[in-house]
Amino acid sequence: MKPIASYFPILQWGQTYNRQALSGDLLAAVIVTIMLIPQSLAYALLAGLPPEVGLYASIAPIILYAIFGSSRTLAVGPVAVVSLMTAAAIGNIADQGTMGYALAALTLAGLSGAILLAMGLLRLGFLANFLSHPVISGFITASGILIAASQIKHILGISATGYTLPEMLISMLQELPGSNWITLLIGVMATAFLFWIRKGLKPLLQRLGMGRRAADMVTKAGPILAVVVSTVAVWALGLDAHGVRIVGAVPQGLPPLTLPSFSPDLVQMLLLPALLISVIGFVESISVAQTLAAKRRQQIDPDQELIGLGAANLAAACTGGYPVTGGFARSVVNFDAGAETPAAGAFTAIGLAIAALALTPLIYFLPIATLAATIIVAVLSLVDFSILKRSWLYSRADFIAVAATILLTLGMGVETGITAGVVLSIALHLYKTSRPHIAEVGLVPGTQHFRNILRHKVLTDPGLLSIRIDESLYFANARFLEDYLSNRVASVSPIKHTVLMCSAINEIDLSALESLEAINHRLSTMDVKLHLSEVKGPVMDRLKKSHFLDALTGQVFLSQYDALQALAPDIIRTPGHDH
Amino acid sequence: MKPIASYFPILQWGQTYNRQALSGDLLAAVIVTIMLIPQSLAYALLAGLPPEVGLYASIAPIILYAIFGSSRTLAVGPVAVVSLMTAAAIGNIADQGTMGYALAALTLAGLSGAILLAMGLLRLGFLANFLSHPVISGFITASGILIAASQIKHILGISATGYTLPEMLISMLQELPGSNWITLLIGVMATAFLFWIRKGLKPLLQRLGMGRRAADMVTKAGPILAVVVSTVAVWALGLDAHGVRIVGAVPQGLPPLTLPSFSPDLVQMLLLPALLISVIGFVESISVAQTLAAKRRQQIDPDQELIGLGAANLAAACTGGYPVTGGFARSVVNFDAGAETPAAGAFTAIGLAIAALALTPLIYFLPIATLAATIIVAVLSLVDFSILKRSWLYSRADFIAVAATILLTLGMGVETGITAGVVLSIALHLYKTSRPHIAEVGLVPGTQHFRNILRHKVLTDPGLLSIRIDESLYFANARFLEDYLSNRVASVSPIKHTVLMCSAINEIDLSALESLEAINHRLSTMDVKLHLSEVKGPVMDRLKKSHFLDALTGQVFLSQYDALQALAPDIIRTPGHDH
Repeated sequence: MKPIASYFPILQWGQTYNRQALSGDLLAAVIVTIMLIPQSLAYALLAGLPPEVGLYASIAPIILYAIFGSSRTLAVGPVAVVSLMTAAAIGNIADQGTMGYALAALTLAGLSGAILLAMGLLRLGFLANFLSHPVISGFITASGILIAASQIKHILGISATGYTLPEMLISMLQELPGSNWITLLIGVMATAFLFWIRKGLKPLLQRLGMGRRAADMVTKAGPILAVVVSTVAVWALGLDAHGVRIVGAVPQGLPPLTLPSFSPDLVQMLLLPALLISVIGFVESISVAQTLAAKRRQQIDPDQELIGLGAANLAAACTGGYPVTGGFARSVVNFDAGAETPAAGAFTAIGLAIAALALTPLIYFLPIATLAATIIVAVLSLVDFSILKRSWLYSRADFIAVAATILLTLGMGVETGITAGVVLSIALHLYKTSRPHIAEVGLVPGTQHFRNILRHKVLTDPGLLSIRIDESLYFANARFLEDYLSNRVASVSPIKHTVLMCSAINEIDLSALESLEAINHRLSTMDVKLHLSEVKGPVMDRLKKSHFLDALTGQVFLSQYDALQALAPDIIRTPGHDH
Repeated sequence: MKPIASYFPILQWGQTYNRQALSGDLLAAVIVTIMLIPQSLAYALLAGLPPEVGLYASIAPIILYAIFGSSRTLAVGPVAVVSLMTAAAIGNIADQGTMGYALAALTLAGLSGAILLAMGLLRLGFLANFLSHPVISGFITASGILIAASQIKHILGISATGYTLPEMLISMLQELPGSNWITLLIGVMATAFLFWIRKGLKPLLQRLGMGRRAADMVTKAGPILAVVVSTVAVWALGLDAHGVRIVGAVPQGLPPLTLPSFSPDLVQMLLLPALLISVIGFVESISVAQTLAAKRRQQIDPDQELIGLGAANLAAACTGGYPVTGGFARSVVNFDAGAETPAAGAFTAIGLAIAALALTPLIYFLPIATLAATIIVAVLSLVDFSILKRSWLYSRADFIAVAATILLTLGMGVETGITAGVVLSIALHLYKTSRPHIAEVGLVPGTQHFRNILRHKVLTDPGLLSIRIDESLYFANARFLEDYLSNRVASVSPIKHTVLMCSAINEIDLSALESLEAINHRLSTMDVKLHLSEVKGPVMDRLKKSHFLDALTGQVFLSQYDALQALAPDIIRTPGHDH
């Protein structure tokens, strides 16, 4: 059992909190708050929820994560991929804008929080490792494309539906005649401006003599400028009367106290999406947290992270939010702006609470197209097809998993895509281990080292067959070795001894043990003795519990060299004698 | 591509067929026919089908298998476990005795045939290896219990339902008051007699001077005696009028030509059961075929076996049968009786066709209780709980998989049981490989061999950390090594070199490559060089395609001993210096 205090990382950093940390945290909180106001509104839009829900989802969850999370600088809140997954999960259950939709979002956050918390308490963080890096990369890339595609309708000023790329494209083409040209103008200008901020503003500021870090901060806060300018333009020119969709009236106030639904029907429908959202959110969050922690030589405890994110999601469920996780962009800004402890998050929460209380009337005229532009520019940086090329060059199995993940995510939606990626990468791994590489080995002259006879110039003896199996022996490949050996030994007559070099065998399960017994028996009927060498400690411990070693016709040698000394000493005595 | 002729093993053995093979095959066919008549009727009963269906399922399938199968002595037809699975699969679709039930059985055979044929042509025979030996043993044991339990109602003369042990027991308890005492008497006597034939008849015959092999054959044909005696008793005493259920009128004639249904609804409902039946049937069949082939040094081609069994099942679907596979008992009898080629099967088919044409009126008065006794005695030999003890002693993971398979098969039915067994054994294997054994190794004095410092007395150098990872590196354990190394290296300061001994690494996938890059980078920031040793050929080929070797701070050594010579030569120069 872990000590109770270890579940509250705040007790550690809280003890040494000082003025220097406070000033770093405060500065970071100001910058992150400015960055988060438009982003939170935009991601709520992406999830199909009212804009204020994005603010709500950033307040209480941040505070809970500050208490339970193990990362010093992770910033928790709505993120793009999880917002998309939320929309996909509840889009089939209720219509956007209804009470049912908002309730489903709360329930999804509640379920996700419960799953994350349970995984953390049961120390199941390792499960996230079954999402391979290439599958995650492929999924994020495909999600980025889906998200960008889903926002084009707001730039065009039309209504369109769909959660897969073909659905979205067909729906947009049908609605295209209804485009609003003023909205399009605002959307395109905002997108172009935001791209320029990303690429052009920082060099410009540096040329104007601003420090690198300050230029960075101004760049990150830049999107607020697009918000202000386009809002003022709509208000001043009365563009909402010309069909430009605006955010409109947003309730002014602190996050409401809410309760997710526990109706069995709803829970059953949302359980699988909640599981996928939890795992994807956790993987995204933990990789950001570990990247940042490594820079300052801090430690991240994956199981404690699960608890922190679980608490954050439960908080979101109780304060009118939707599923949240640690975001990449906001965490990096927080880190770069000098945040030292999770207190920076708490200050950000206060800043956003003030925004929710006081600033919402100011965004009445904010055009939806500007928010869509914010999303498009943010997510296109997620799109990176280089993983296809890298995996193609390095490993076809990885390539197949990535390509399938991308195609299925785009074509059949986020849930099918990520599930197929995980299942396929596991299936391909099992397939590979079910037909292991088997090498016949010989002695590298002048050493005690044995290598593949096909790749190295080595010494062998016709009466001694040395076989190295490059895989643990388990049920999926037990028969493979049996077939290989019976073919190999039957075809060459002078063999008197077969040595299995077990240096790559990390496990022998009961199925494989039965195969070894069968091999031993079959070889003995051919007057061939079976020996083992270089059996690892844990494997040997296991074999000693069975009757296999009693039945074994040959011996168990510590090393392959010992086996050669005992069974074919002539080779060693005549150095340079190369078969 | 395989040559077309290789798909017809009959072309090989047919060329050398001679008079000696003919006489062996004829004798075997007579004995197997006598054994199969009661068994076929009984298994049809178990599957919930009319008794003649058991005969039909033994005629055309045997002939098709004789053409396409690769085993010389396998006897194909209805078997106990597949009959039980058939009943479970179609019991929820139609009521026993209806046309719909018979049609579903044909469709199940057709689907199963198509699946087996496709697997054979696509060379997917290896998929059967994912059923581990312990899971199969557990499944067969639990199925044996279920089958025996399902027949008790016929011994009691009551109607009872259910496909799981609790369902059957509750249903039987409810119906118990309606037991028929004469039926019970016949059933108990038949069961006792059949047990005695198994255990007592052979020694008795041998004591009476009969040869061992002849005594064996008479024993195998013994059940026909129970059939004859009980039939005559019912007829002579008019017991059917006292409530003893009898087989009744069985149509006289050759198997009818039939066609399975291709209705999408039915196909969809039966697809998963058909897949499970195909795989279980294939596994049962191939293990019998391989056991028998090994005794005569013959070869079995698993993919050709799939084609043979597929053809047999398609034949069953077209001739009024139900799913078939190679049976253990009948194949052993066929082999022991001297069958030399699949022609023995063809002769058996002729014998059974004669029975279907001429003998069916004779079994009008055959009591159902006698058939139930035949089944009970046959399947109780399948029940073997020793696998629980063996797996408990050898490996807890295998034990968990076996215990879950047995409990779930008994408690939730055959389909849930076998599926859970497969999924669980794969999950446990993945879990084990996700947290690999990692050993710190040192030089065994006087050799060039390296072993675990905790298990052997070895030489080490404080500046050199030698790590052997006992597992392929792939996505599920990539992070594990990263965490292990960063903890290990951070905690000891004098380390200047870390060597990963890769003798047990059979694969490095893209996720693991990224982890190695991260490890290399992290160690370099600590001024520790990362080296590799004993990298296998296929793994090295792969690494050369990436940029990892360019970035690697250290070198790649052929052997761990080479690494030691280069990085810590002092150890070798001062023999006996033991850290």
